[in-house]
Amino acid sequence: MTTSIEWVAVDWGTSNLRAWGLGAEGDIVASAGSDKGMGKLAPGQFPAALTDVLANLPLPAGPVEVLVCGMAGARQGWMEAPYLDAPADLLDLAGRAVRPPMGDMPLSVSILPGVCQRQGGENVMRGEETQLLGLSELVPGYAGIVCMPGTHSKWAVLNGTHIARFTTAMTGEMFDLLKTHSVLRHSLSGPLDDAERDDGFDSGAREGLNHPEDLLGRLFKVRAGMLLSDRSPPWSAGYLSGLLIGTEIAANRNQFGTDPVPLIGSTVLCRLYARVLDMAGASGRPIDATEAVLAGLRLAHARLHQGKSS
Amino acid sequence: MTTSIEWVAVDWGTSNLRAWGLGAEGDIVASAGSDKGMGKLAPGQFPAALTDVLANLPLPAGPVEVLVCGMAGARQGWMEAPYLDAPADLLDLAGRAVRPPMGDMPLSVSILPGVCQRQGGENVMRGEETQLLGLSELVPGYAGIVCMPGTHSKWAVLNGTHIARFTTAMTGEMFDLLKTHSVLRHSLSGPLDDAERDDGFDSGAREGLNHPEDLLGRLFKVRAGMLLSDRSPPWSAGYLSGLLIGTEIAANRNQFGTDPVPLIGSTVLCRLYARVLDMAGASGRPIDATEAVLAGLRLAHARLHQGKSS
Repeated sequence: MTTSIEWVAVDWGTSNLRAWGLGAEGDIVASAGSDKGMGKLAPGQFPAALTDVLANLPLPAGPVEVLVCGMAGARQGWMEAPYLDAPADLLDLAGRAVRPPMGDMPLSVSILPGVCQRQGGENVMRGEETQLLGLSELVPGYAGIVCMPGTHSKWAVLNGTHIARFTTAMTGEMFDLLKTHSVLRHSLSGPLDDAERDDGFDSGAREGLNHPEDLLGRLFKVRAGMLLSDRSPPWSAGYLSGLLIGTEIAANRNQFGTDPVPLIGSTVLCRLYARVLDMAGASGRPIDATEAVLAGLRLAHARLHQGKSS
Repeated sequence: MTTSIEWVAVDWGTSNLRAWGLGAEGDIVASAGSDKGMGKLAPGQFPAALTDVLANLPLPAGPVEVLVCGMAGARQGWMEAPYLDAPADLLDLAGRAVRPPMGDMPLSVSILPGVCQRQGGENVMRGEETQLLGLSELVPGYAGIVCMPGTHSKWAVLNGTHIARFTTAMTGEMFDLLKTHSVLRHSLSGPLDDAERDDGFDSGAREGLNHPEDLLGRLFKVRAGMLLSDRSPPWSAGYLSGLLIGTEIAANRNQFGTDPVPLIGSTVLCRLYARVLDMAGASGRPIDATEAVLAGLRLAHARLHQGKSS
């Protein structure tokens, strides 16, 4: 006998929307998703995008509770959920959720806020804070720096459910920009060759780790290497990726020691970051991003109900 | 009485083509140009693009000599002029010019090579080497670092006509990429306000000068500053420009002392770089880029004829 869905957890990012129907014990009963991320929706289109996805889940009759994290709560999203200010206890995310009016739809929706930092370097996150909250359950008692590789990588200092401060590195977006739109694009497109790519990656990562101040200068070596040394596209793509990640990790070098740094992100990215952390004399501890966001949504959901019954 | 055109000097870049009809003393008799840069031409289209521009100059009857520098000599240009290898004497550019076949057209065309660096950091330039050669005439005996701000800024170590080594920083292209294609574009477009822009520029330049290793991290402050502090588009555009230029200058800080650094580039860019050099405890000495390239073409032209008559 399968359990029935008690509530729905949703991670609504810029590019995608993912929904999990969860049972009474927080177990996943069913999941569904779509590419209707915030970037493709006007505010009025969010309710229909959500019901389209929920139609793929075996929902019980009657009203269903939906807890959302991510860009749906941005100013240009469904309904703005004003930031929680760091330093903060991430358990307080639940109490700051906003509830968009649903008319006669049988859905009770709560959208969690992101976290901002106004002092010591303005910064914002939406979605990652829920993964960080989840980390407090996946790695109980963890205190230290956490790295979340991605389009906009986040580095956060965590102590249990408490976030002290964080930064953002535009590493992934920079790679995409350079590969798609820059003069370097001529050196980067071609057949894949993993060995050449790995070789280029290590070469770039070493340069980034050793000369993070010279990123603007080292980038052009992608083009010069093709013109002068017949560097192949996979080597050049690896070099560029390694250079950017090496630069990012070097800039954060004073935030970690030799203890493993939790890495929350895609498997591929976490492997690359772990490789460069090794080169920097440290190590990485990959954490599955989906497990982290689900753990965070479960904690926030429990907190929401604890708050209501108190 | 006006002098007549003895030969034509051409600076053929990626975006534009500029031609000057020069008299016997190297004086400018007339000039013309078009937007038919290398980026818009297939190799076979170069002769017609040149004659279209030359039709606007009062050329003498009979064959005319044309000396070209810049991207026309690139592999993807008109005819490849293989690089001169640094370290090198820039007077040797003339002897390495290539001569594309012109059929029965009454033009005798020579295309100067660029300069490459194979040891100590692969690098290439095409066009800037002729400006550097010109600098040896505009600032006789200059020895030291030269900065050439632009889409791909060059930093070259010069001693008279001798180039020891050089680097390239993708600063200008990075600004354009981020302004046009990145998530930061939302924070950058709006009405101009020079005072706000200057304020943002100084703030970004200070951060770049002090933390060049953290460029990837500081970029996102453009977005966070808009979201959290209502930073205006001109302030944000100034901040981004200052951050990038400050980072570039900090990365080259060990190459200059307190002596003025020659700056060859557009008036606007040279003013910004001079401002940041001041903040870094040094100073800049703006040199007009057109004067520099013309001086270089004149020197190369003289060398070409000196070589022929010897």
